[in-house]
Amino acid sequence: MTTTVIVGGVAGGMSTATRLRRNDENMDIIVLESSGYVSFANCGLPYFIGGEITERSNLLLQTPQSLKSRFNLDVRINSTATSIDRAAKTVTVSGPEGTYTQKYDYLVLSPGAQPLMPPIPGIETALTLRNVEDTDRIIEYVQATSARKAVIIGGGFIGLELAENLTKRSIATTVIEQAPHIMGPFDEEMAAMVTEHMINHGVTIRANSQVTAIGEGYVAIGDEKVDADIVIAALGVRPASDLARNAGLEVNQRGGITVDSQHRTNDPAIFALGDAAEKTDLISGAGVMVPLAQTANRHGRLVADVITGRQTHSLPVLGTAIIGLFGLAAASTGWNERRARSEGKTIRVIHSHPVHHAGYYPGASSLHLKLIVDADSDSILGAQAVGTQGVDKRIDVIATAMRAGLKASDLADLELAYAPQFGSAKDPINMLGFIADNGRTGEQTRQWHELDDALADGWQLVDVRTKAEYNRGTIPGAINIPVDELRDHVEELRGKKVLVHCQVGLRGHIACTMLTNSGLECANLDGGYITWSYGQRARTA
Amino acid sequence: MTTTVIVGGVAGGMSTATRLRRNDENMDIIVLESSGYVSFANCGLPYFIGGEITERSNLLLQTPQSLKSRFNLDVRINSTATSIDRAAKTVTVSGPEGTYTQKYDYLVLSPGAQPLMPPIPGIETALTLRNVEDTDRIIEYVQATSARKAVIIGGGFIGLELAENLTKRSIATTVIEQAPHIMGPFDEEMAAMVTEHMINHGVTIRANSQVTAIGEGYVAIGDEKVDADIVIAALGVRPASDLARNAGLEVNQRGGITVDSQHRTNDPAIFALGDAAEKTDLISGAGVMVPLAQTANRHGRLVADVITGRQTHSLPVLGTAIIGLFGLAAASTGWNERRARSEGKTIRVIHSHPVHHAGYYPGASSLHLKLIVDADSDSILGAQAVGTQGVDKRIDVIATAMRAGLKASDLADLELAYAPQFGSAKDPINMLGFIADNGRTGEQTRQWHELDDALADGWQLVDVRTKAEYNRGTIPGAINIPVDELRDHVEELRGKKVLVHCQVGLRGHIACTMLTNSGLECANLDGGYITWSYGQRARTA
Repeated sequence: MTTTVIVGGVAGGMSTATRLRRNDENMDIIVLESSGYVSFANCGLPYFIGGEITERSNLLLQTPQSLKSRFNLDVRINSTATSIDRAAKTVTVSGPEGTYTQKYDYLVLSPGAQPLMPPIPGIETALTLRNVEDTDRIIEYVQATSARKAVIIGGGFIGLELAENLTKRSIATTVIEQAPHIMGPFDEEMAAMVTEHMINHGVTIRANSQVTAIGEGYVAIGDEKVDADIVIAALGVRPASDLARNAGLEVNQRGGITVDSQHRTNDPAIFALGDAAEKTDLISGAGVMVPLAQTANRHGRLVADVITGRQTHSLPVLGTAIIGLFGLAAASTGWNERRARSEGKTIRVIHSHPVHHAGYYPGASSLHLKLIVDADSDSILGAQAVGTQGVDKRIDVIATAMRAGLKASDLADLELAYAPQFGSAKDPINMLGFIADNGRTGEQTRQWHELDDALADGWQLVDVRTKAEYNRGTIPGAINIPVDELRDHVEELRGKKVLVHCQVGLRGHIACTMLTNSGLECANLDGGYITWSYGQRARTA
Repeated sequence: MTTTVIVGGVAGGMSTATRLRRNDENMDIIVLESSGYVSFANCGLPYFIGGEITERSNLLLQTPQSLKSRFNLDVRINSTATSIDRAAKTVTVSGPEGTYTQKYDYLVLSPGAQPLMPPIPGIETALTLRNVEDTDRIIEYVQATSARKAVIIGGGFIGLELAENLTKRSIATTVIEQAPHIMGPFDEEMAAMVTEHMINHGVTIRANSQVTAIGEGYVAIGDEKVDADIVIAALGVRPASDLARNAGLEVNQRGGITVDSQHRTNDPAIFALGDAAEKTDLISGAGVMVPLAQTANRHGRLVADVITGRQTHSLPVLGTAIIGLFGLAAASTGWNERRARSEGKTIRVIHSHPVHHAGYYPGASSLHLKLIVDADSDSILGAQAVGTQGVDKRIDVIATAMRAGLKASDLADLELAYAPQFGSAKDPINMLGFIADNGRTGEQTRQWHELDDALADGWQLVDVRTKAEYNRGTIPGAINIPVDELRDHVEELRGKKVLVHCQVGLRGHIACTMLTNSGLECANLDGGYITWSYGQRARTA
């Protein structure tokens, strides 16, 4: 009988195990999980801390017993694979009843990742959040100490989710981020929206700040001490690949186990997947680390299919992700502007600020979208979205379009479900396509961070919003000519390079076509005053 | 100077006009609108009747004055084009100040559609809903007569939206539909969910019922009289193509103006688009009538681009649509099962009943999905979704996948935004892909409407749900073997053809793989007990 041993019993490992059983009734399938729980809802852990999820049992999706009866799996919790003997095809296991050697025909490594713990003095006293035991520990600590003040080190997704949930427990929370802004996958002006929202909900955000020490009751940023009854390190993860590396399996520079498109390591009997394994980036084809549950699940099914002889292979990944924070959603897929520029791409960037459904129907809320387009090919490189409604939908549509190889202009032709409660007759996605098509066919725009250079280069900034909007605040250097009066003022502008801006970019587009078609040189400030404003806030935060 | 005359000032016509101006500052652009309003929110009209939209001004997105100042358009309301002289390139216009002849270089026909009024005695007394004046008329009628009972003839989208909104005005409403079920674009078992929801909210649904006469205070269905203080005909629309036909322009059998992929009629100076014009079906390539606002908008932009010399052409349409009714959303794209079968396709049909986001996070609500797949090519032919949350997102993703030519199995690899508030690590869309892939690789399923034939053919029906679920109600003829006990009962079933069912199809899939891998012949009842139940309700309604 064939024996498959799977290291790791959460997303990737458990998907492998159950699919293996569905493909093969006779295989021996052994799952080794080092924690005390398998198949737990790791993405739900912060919400149990915050009290949104009230039943601990809801986090535990399966038990060894339920997996035995349904799938005839041999699930061994509190069992750690400590070494692999590839020649003998065995793993050494440290379990509740001691150490033993387990034979395998196929070995699947899905051990996940471990919290990054940089060498900060006192870091060993910080808590982390990765599994059910960590969750219990944080809750117990908070209760035992009656913690009133928390510091989260790291402004990534887990850190921010923890900040939200500790705040919901009435704990004053500070997030310390060493990068210029929180929400690393996002560009600064988009992240600024999230920062603002977090601050509005009582969280203190300290970006550009390096933790230098953790002491009794405080976290130090240089000479400054931030009070902290509880300190949680959420500085990202590193692949749990020591087992693989020690067995001579190839790992990449970031420690990710390298695999082929069938998730085979350099040992044909050993597969790897999930947070511990390298993936291939959809855009560049390079190896990337994308620690996401859905990718682990997908690849688990795939590894099981490969082991049982089905012809299949994994596809490159986009890294689609979303976070919900105090009712605000922020999602992204593919590359951000920073990444695209650093990779040397010639890009067109589009910001738009529509409402999430027809404006004439009650309840329309603001949506902020950003699309990064390869200027040479019109390919979509990435997208970001922030808002309270409809964020996930728009990113999912764009991620689907990217997976399928649609061009940015093709977004104009997507037929999306429209009724006034759900979208607009020209959906925000279609509008991105229209704007992309305008760019593709030669319309000039400038980004918020290119404004200073443009002004220095002699462009005249014209605010084409109404007088009232202009008076409430405009961009320094702008004169005001409302778009509806612009036709009467074209000659005054002739001979100048005109950079127009409105609130979101739409009236600016109309103004710019009018001026361009009248023979003037014109560019539109992409995303208008709103994008510019968030850019300013990002730079002055 | 070039003059373009546009007939119709709502979605398609106004999109043409404003895009024309953005492309060409000097063109004379004249818009003829037969009603008193342009660019109104036609999809919002039912919600103004129901009181959801409280300000009438919110329906009026633009006025002739606002369009003059922003786009320099010559918008003429209450102006009907009554004939076209193609040789002279003129239209005769009947306007507020009499009849006159208007010259054009390009003529764009976007007159929309008219309510279908079949020859039922008294039909001329029924109200209809198509524009702002119709809306005012319905509200005035309701107020003047203090109507307490309404009959809507026609259970399509507009009829059902009216039923919801009249109900919100405390008017007891009956919808009479001559077809076997309301919601024509949907298959019967999916439409049954909407029927049930409407009934639960107090609407009376009379399907399979032919209105034979409309009289004073009643609507007759044969000998039966249904009381009605107000009667609204919502029997669908026909293209408003008399003007085109009388001018010798080609129309199809359904009255739609035929156009090429640049929306040119058989007269190269005349374009047509919107509800009055034929489109091309994405799946079959045949001509179809798809009266949707978004398509009209898209094609308006496109016609303007063609007129101003840009190289572009329209794409075939899917007919994506959505309706919201008392908090329930129902959406569809592409073909339904009925259509696919009538076109002779060999299909695989998938029903699933997931929750809209992670089940462990509070607030997960039921989602009902249906996917119709071409069995020969694995192409997606269409999809339907019903639920209170996440319906629009799933249909939009599938519509995007269809537009891009992704296969059904490819849905497994879409990387959709996952956090527990927004989806699942295996999103319902991914699950459809997994199920499609299982079907592609040979797993057998049966549809709810194939059950009787299967039982007659000797299949043994096995309910693999728990004893408790079985006792609450099962499918006649089923024996009960819970999936978690099935391994111990395989030999009892050997030699039989086993048709398993569970609640939604997932445990049935697990059971079937176990039996199949044990050497038995097994098929899974697609969509399980839930799909079967709605199928029964559809057939007994």
